[in-house]
Amino acid sequence: MTAQDLPQGMTENTIPLMLGHPDPATLLTPELLHAMQRVISSPQVYTALQYGPEQGTQSLIKFLVEKIKREQGLSLHSGNLMVVGGSTHAVDMVARLYARAGGVVLVEAPTYVDAMHIFRDHQIELCSIPMDEDGLIPRELEKQVAHLSANGKSPSFLYTVPNFHNPTGSTLSEARRREIIGLARTYGFLIVEDDVYRDLSFEGVTEGVVPGSFYALAQGKQVLSIGNFSKTLAPGLRLGWLLGAEDDIQRCVNCGTTQMGGGANPFVANIVAEYCLSGHWETHIVNLRSLYKTRCNVALAALEQYMPTDVGWTRPAGGFFIWLSLPENVFAQDVKRLALQEGVLVAAGEGFFVTAVEGEHNLRLAFSCAAPGEIETGICILAEVIDRSRVR
Amino acid sequence: MTAQDLPQGMTENTIPLMLGHPDPATLLTPELLHAMQRVISSPQVYTALQYGPEQGTQSLIKFLVEKIKREQGLSLHSGNLMVVGGSTHAVDMVARLYARAGGVVLVEAPTYVDAMHIFRDHQIELCSIPMDEDGLIPRELEKQVAHLSANGKSPSFLYTVPNFHNPTGSTLSEARRREIIGLARTYGFLIVEDDVYRDLSFEGVTEGVVPGSFYALAQGKQVLSIGNFSKTLAPGLRLGWLLGAEDDIQRCVNCGTTQMGGGANPFVANIVAEYCLSGHWETHIVNLRSLYKTRCNVALAALEQYMPTDVGWTRPAGGFFIWLSLPENVFAQDVKRLALQEGVLVAAGEGFFVTAVEGEHNLRLAFSCAAPGEIETGICILAEVIDRSRVR
Repeated sequence: MTAQDLPQGMTENTIPLMLGHPDPATLLTPELLHAMQRVISSPQVYTALQYGPEQGTQSLIKFLVEKIKREQGLSLHSGNLMVVGGSTHAVDMVARLYARAGGVVLVEAPTYVDAMHIFRDHQIELCSIPMDEDGLIPRELEKQVAHLSANGKSPSFLYTVPNFHNPTGSTLSEARRREIIGLARTYGFLIVEDDVYRDLSFEGVTEGVVPGSFYALAQGKQVLSIGNFSKTLAPGLRLGWLLGAEDDIQRCVNCGTTQMGGGANPFVANIVAEYCLSGHWETHIVNLRSLYKTRCNVALAALEQYMPTDVGWTRPAGGFFIWLSLPENVFAQDVKRLALQEGVLVAAGEGFFVTAVEGEHNLRLAFSCAAPGEIETGICILAEVIDRSRVR
Repeated sequence: MTAQDLPQGMTENTIPLMLGHPDPATLLTPELLHAMQRVISSPQVYTALQYGPEQGTQSLIKFLVEKIKREQGLSLHSGNLMVVGGSTHAVDMVARLYARAGGVVLVEAPTYVDAMHIFRDHQIELCSIPMDEDGLIPRELEKQVAHLSANGKSPSFLYTVPNFHNPTGSTLSEARRREIIGLARTYGFLIVEDDVYRDLSFEGVTEGVVPGSFYALAQGKQVLSIGNFSKTLAPGLRLGWLLGAEDDIQRCVNCGTTQMGGGANPFVANIVAEYCLSGHWETHIVNLRSLYKTRCNVALAALEQYMPTDVGWTRPAGGFFIWLSLPENVFAQDVKRLALQEGVLVAAGEGFFVTAVEGEHNLRLAFSCAAPGEIETGICILAEVIDRSRVR
């Protein structure tokens, strides 16, 4: 982000606790640079510069399938995965192909603001499902689906961020995932899991540390799972993947945008394939886990130290975000405005809800792109601002 | 395209007259390679790898605005243009934001098959407007719009490929463009011009050689104009632009996909900006014009020499395509099948029409990615196959 793109009121010294951006310093490793150099100086570059196979660059598909198989103990083959232009492309394509305009999509309350924006652009009706500290509540989900059904409506899909949720940082338990899969089968809706933070589990992704993905738990049926390189490599590459049953992937491969544009970002996909095959991505991810775990711990310690006792927060096990619950007499918009005046940028909760008012006492803190010292200072300032914002 | 991606029945020796791909040999110039090297070895790469400004990489916007202003004698500023991920991104975004599902979009008959596919994915009703050798016929357009209006419907926009049309190769006259702008104002629909072949006018783009764009003729009002780097640099970069009134561009910048993904392909956009600013793109375009003009001339001479007298064809002044009209007793599908058996790949006409049967006596030949010798041989074989396909 350059100075000219800074949000109003923000300077280059503002402490950035608002956006879920990866730490800029992590974006170019020597190994990624070498992969770039190898691709552009080899005959492979001609393939990389032409329209690519619709499903995506084959070597990258093969690499990702092997990685996911190994980590999630899944039966998987190359027909289950396609390359996409970042998770944005996947969310938009799934909305376009799987939800009719005027149809219903189930989302968490709160949910990822930009996904909601995409659904609204498609004229999709959103039905939000309450969460608690363990994520989406299955009995609330069933209640809403039954209510829709009584009104002659059936949801096209559930959009969920099961791991290190955006904005709350919470992780949905395996038991709840299984219950939700049961509901999806009973009521016939698809589950779309946006799992872009999975690799950023602070304690790694071995069995037992992160619950099995919806895709794994449902044995690959009735689930589309989205991953990307934006959180664990570089957002500017605009690259990700979509995992699903073979006929679902084929449907996406055969759609208009894929047929017109060819495979997603072939030039970049060839570079990322080269990088991944060199074996350095996994090492980089291990480094990122440690980096973000440290930042999260700094944030949690600062919250403990500085926050008034009537402020609550989540304790994420991975990802980029902590979710704050403010007392009834403190409004997120006031805090956001005053914090910015003091040089700290945070996200107010309203934007993350279908019904904005539900988020008026919440803040999202991103610890991903501020240095530890900035995080501590920022939270100290925020605590003071929260106290000052109390409506009397 | 690698061997494994070849259409069924096609071998690596097949003469490729089907796909509108640029000549693979043109995809990497030393100057593009140098631009890649400069970007990846400069601090600029950190910006390029992060989420970019939503409107797109600013230096590229500035370059494109200056180029279009200079070539089209327009009043234009940076608020009139955004970077997109290839024309696919632009067509899909415009369909999503400007046409309601169940709404109507006007298209040419024939039209670009993949754009039609995207509109259908959005559940948009297509209404097709007849063309003659001078392109879209304004009085037919008015007839259709009046008919829709009598049925209580109004089209959201007209999708048109005004220059070196895909699939026909024809160019819409300036007089007709003005008439169509008049109709758009009378009936209140937007004009979406897919102008990706403009730069490939064989005689250049100076005034009088190519008619003014819809955008220029309408003084930037009620027109969205799409351009890309896929035809004049490399499709695998997945980069293009959208030109429009400032509030239309702002609407696209503010939509869900742009807000979620950030600006289109920042890494690649930084490379392309670096390349363009070095001044080499314009030289490259001049070389491409000459290359494709030669191929088109070879194709036209071969058609003249080999085709039966009852076959007709268009004489494009730019772009990639020639459109063949077969006699009533020759069917495109038969020709396509038999030609492939003889090692020549061509596109049958059906796919380019809303009502497929309208194209059953048409073929599209792409002269862009076959060598002159292959083009001549291919057309010679095709002529023989057409004669052999006559239904008696």
